[in-house]
Amino acid sequence: MRDFSSGNAWLSINTATLRPKWTMPQIADGCARHGIPAISPWRDQVATCGLQVASRAIRAAGLVLSGYCRGGMFPAADQAGLAAALEDNFRAVDEACELGSPCLVLVVGALPGALEGRAAHRDIGRSRTEVVDGIAALLDYARPRSMPLAIEPLHPMYAADRACVNTLEQALDICDALDPAGGGALGVAVDLYHTWWDPKLQAQIQRAGARRLLAFHVCDWLTPTTDLLLDRGMMGDGVIEIRKVRGWMEAAGYAGHSEVEIFSANNWWQRPGDEVLATCIQRHRTVV
Amino acid sequence: MRDFSSGNAWLSINTATLRPKWTMPQIADGCARHGIPAISPWRDQVATCGLQVASRAIRAAGLVLSGYCRGGMFPAADQAGLAAALEDNFRAVDEACELGSPCLVLVVGALPGALEGRAAHRDIGRSRTEVVDGIAALLDYARPRSMPLAIEPLHPMYAADRACVNTLEQALDICDALDPAGGGALGVAVDLYHTWWDPKLQAQIQRAGARRLLAFHVCDWLTPTTDLLLDRGMMGDGVIEIRKVRGWMEAAGYAGHSEVEIFSANNWWQRPGDEVLATCIQRHRTVV
Repeated sequence: MRDFSSGNAWLSINTATLRPKWTMPQIADGCARHGIPAISPWRDQVATCGLQVASRAIRAAGLVLSGYCRGGMFPAADQAGLAAALEDNFRAVDEACELGSPCLVLVVGALPGALEGRAAHRDIGRSRTEVVDGIAALLDYARPRSMPLAIEPLHPMYAADRACVNTLEQALDICDALDPAGGGALGVAVDLYHTWWDPKLQAQIQRAGARRLLAFHVCDWLTPTTDLLLDRGMMGDGVIEIRKVRGWMEAAGYAGHSEVEIFSANNWWQRPGDEVLATCIQRHRTVV
Repeated sequence: MRDFSSGNAWLSINTATLRPKWTMPQIADGCARHGIPAISPWRDQVATCGLQVASRAIRAAGLVLSGYCRGGMFPAADQAGLAAALEDNFRAVDEACELGSPCLVLVVGALPGALEGRAAHRDIGRSRTEVVDGIAALLDYARPRSMPLAIEPLHPMYAADRACVNTLEQALDICDALDPAGGGALGVAVDLYHTWWDPKLQAQIQRAGARRLLAFHVCDWLTPTTDLLLDRGMMGDGVIEIRKVRGWMEAAGYAGHSEVEIFSANNWWQRPGDEVLATCIQRHRTVV
């Protein structure tokens, strides 16, 4: 297992971690200043400053990407909505290519309208079918552009409104169905927050293997958790056995970054960006 | 599939649904007054009025039980804690026998101390082992007393603090390990709130079959869900395909009650008990 205790070589910062504090260029500068070599930008944060500005800032700071967040949200209430979602995913692939990302992370979506509290229907099976169809179509677009797609299973508490792929096993079943050869065009993003509880986690990481393990997102599960979305904890502040799971990832062949992704409305998002980055570095070395 | 549209024969009220409003005797009276034939008492509500008072009130009202909530909480930080938890579970079996319950529902517990925000350790694998050992020991006590044990998988968002059994598949694996013959001494409680998201739900209900399906708890998943514990919705107000899942239960041989269990700090717990029961009846007939 790689030794993280004395360096940042495999540390990446998901830009959501600094969302309310800094713009994309400020995040790139901040990471460079702290000796952090990689980031994973969110699409809306890139859009705010513009793709070209973001791309130049990231390259000027000497950073690489560990992923691009995010494509997905495939289900819709009608054919026009499905087509629009797919078209938007094509643009996400284009942006990921422009930014030089190693993969496009997919948060696949769930019941259309549920995120706004007005689900168009209750048929999660239909949404799951639309997700598989959407990934299949996106794969046809992404494969010739050499942009791997990383399905991110989300915690089951998001099954209604954000993602109806909720276990690593389910994500890998989709990978095996759409990309049976497993050449690297389709894989998974393993996020500790979403998957730590799963009694089959170790076995499914092993099943995935190096060709399917495209990203590893770290944070912690707090007790109590006070908000379903915005209470992701800093590594070491919760109950996830982070290093144990990283060991499973590495045993399965994963050798990429550990990407810190923290949504924390009442804690880290309130603190100065430099303090957040310094804490990420310290916890990366001691806990991850 | 049984027709619920014109009667209450298979309606049961979990007493948590009326928790802040009524005492156990008041709940029993209320159910009788509304023509509801069954309840599932919580242990702490029984303890408040005393076991004998509760038992007499339930019998006087002519009610049967659909379950008794709850045993479990097996994991502990040390041997003394494990022994104390097991001893308490023996008392829960005794009470379930006294009340004439068809089963004792088990919420198995998770990381000791996590519910108080002070987890004694992070090793969920250890807790899972302690849960299996605890159920095995409790089964030795419950079987000669003819009290079936129903393992209730809880939603993965409770994996840290309430139950480290989080899927129906995991619960059934435990059943098969401890009770391979499947004579009815050990089974599962399928609660829609905890299991609706699971892509393997239909297959695992089918696997369980009539001998393992000991209880069926109904409510709904609201979008948005504003609290991790106290925002369970009334059937029909959320996104769960309740009737579809009941169909899966019946196809697998389940012919028991549909037990309404709603924790709702800001809605149903604020309303008059008679209004809650009338709504449960109406939704049982139209949605369940």
